[in-house]
Amino acid sequence: MRYTRNELLDIVSAQMPARRWTHVEGVIETSVRLAHRYGADPIKADLAALLHDLAKFWPVERQEAVVREQGLNPELLDYDKQLLHAEVAAFVAEQEYGIDDPEVLDAVRYHTSGRVGMTLLDKIVCLADYIEPGRNFPGVEHIRELAEHNLEQALLAGFDSTISFLIEKGKIIFPLTLLARNDLVRQLDREGK
Amino acid sequence: MRYTRNELLDIVSAQMPARRWTHVEGVIETSVRLAHRYGADPIKADLAALLHDLAKFWPVERQEAVVREQGLNPELLDYDKQLLHAEVAAFVAEQEYGIDDPEVLDAVRYHTSGRVGMTLLDKIVCLADYIEPGRNFPGVEHIRELAEHNLEQALLAGFDSTISFLIEKGKIIFPLTLLARNDLVRQLDREGK
Repeated sequence: MRYTRNELLDIVSAQMPARRWTHVEGVIETSVRLAHRYGADPIKADLAALLHDLAKFWPVERQEAVVREQGLNPELLDYDKQLLHAEVAAFVAEQEYGIDDPEVLDAVRYHTSGRVGMTLLDKIVCLADYIEPGRNFPGVEHIRELAEHNLEQALLAGFDSTISFLIEKGKIIFPLTLLARNDLVRQLDREGK
Repeated sequence: MRYTRNELLDIVSAQMPARRWTHVEGVIETSVRLAHRYGADPIKADLAALLHDLAKFWPVERQEAVVREQGLNPELLDYDKQLLHAEVAAFVAEQEYGIDDPEVLDAVRYHTSGRVGMTLLDKIVCLADYIEPGRNFPGVEHIRELAEHNLEQALLAGFDSTISFLIEKGKIIFPLTLLARNDLVRQLDREGK
């Protein structure tokens, strides 16, 4: 790696307000705990969680410029601006911070949208982002309880809470999140859970 | 047309239990009323509504066979069996009953799933299927009220009730229904409704 973990902590935390850094610390702690619980690599979980929101507080125009100029998924430009930061973070982590582990980069890239065929690490970082101790939304306690014994059920409940929230607000739903959710339903059906 | 309206009534009603025929009569009545309300062709609305469930009570294997052997949208085979009958009905209406109006056939084809870029007739038949007088599900009264003054808002509420129901039941959601729903949100946003 081009930077030590401590250097990355400094670099990433400098890019967001202190309140948001507390969230990142929560996602790191929760991701590492889930990695131990479900047999993922805790070093990778720690790194992906550390990086996941590095572009979250960049001006939207800067995020859009990266997506447009660097040839990232152009579909993102047609949806909620909240989706941009994940793809941008993966790009910056690779290009500017020298992170070259595709598993870590994918977990960063898909931590908001999810995707079809999520890896164990994808699921852990995405779920940790829903349930880290600072989160407080209707149903979060139920998702935390599910997270203790079934990673897929917990993540499905997270995606479903997002979709239900967007329905309630009359907002567009990112299609990939629906596909990710359907994929988890299929996986749970196959495994009889 | 190869058959008169009365002949089609006999042909279609013979393919389903009496209870379901009552539903079709409700969709006919509601579609024609909505067509007058929103400026669609009531003759086309009547015909599409009459035909929409013609394959609903065919054995699933027969519906799947039509999709497979006639080269209809193969994606349907991977989703809820309830989605098959609409595509099959459009095919049968065209091939066996000689219906050649693409607007009517599309309204039949997309009456369950919806689609991106729904026509006025698509919307009317799809909404009528949600709110005909025999329907009774949580929220149907709210959708009926919306249908009096805003077709798109009413249909969006219908799709959202379907998506919420499937989430509650832990079932797969057909992606096209999400895309149809997002498309209505965008249309309402554009029109400032």
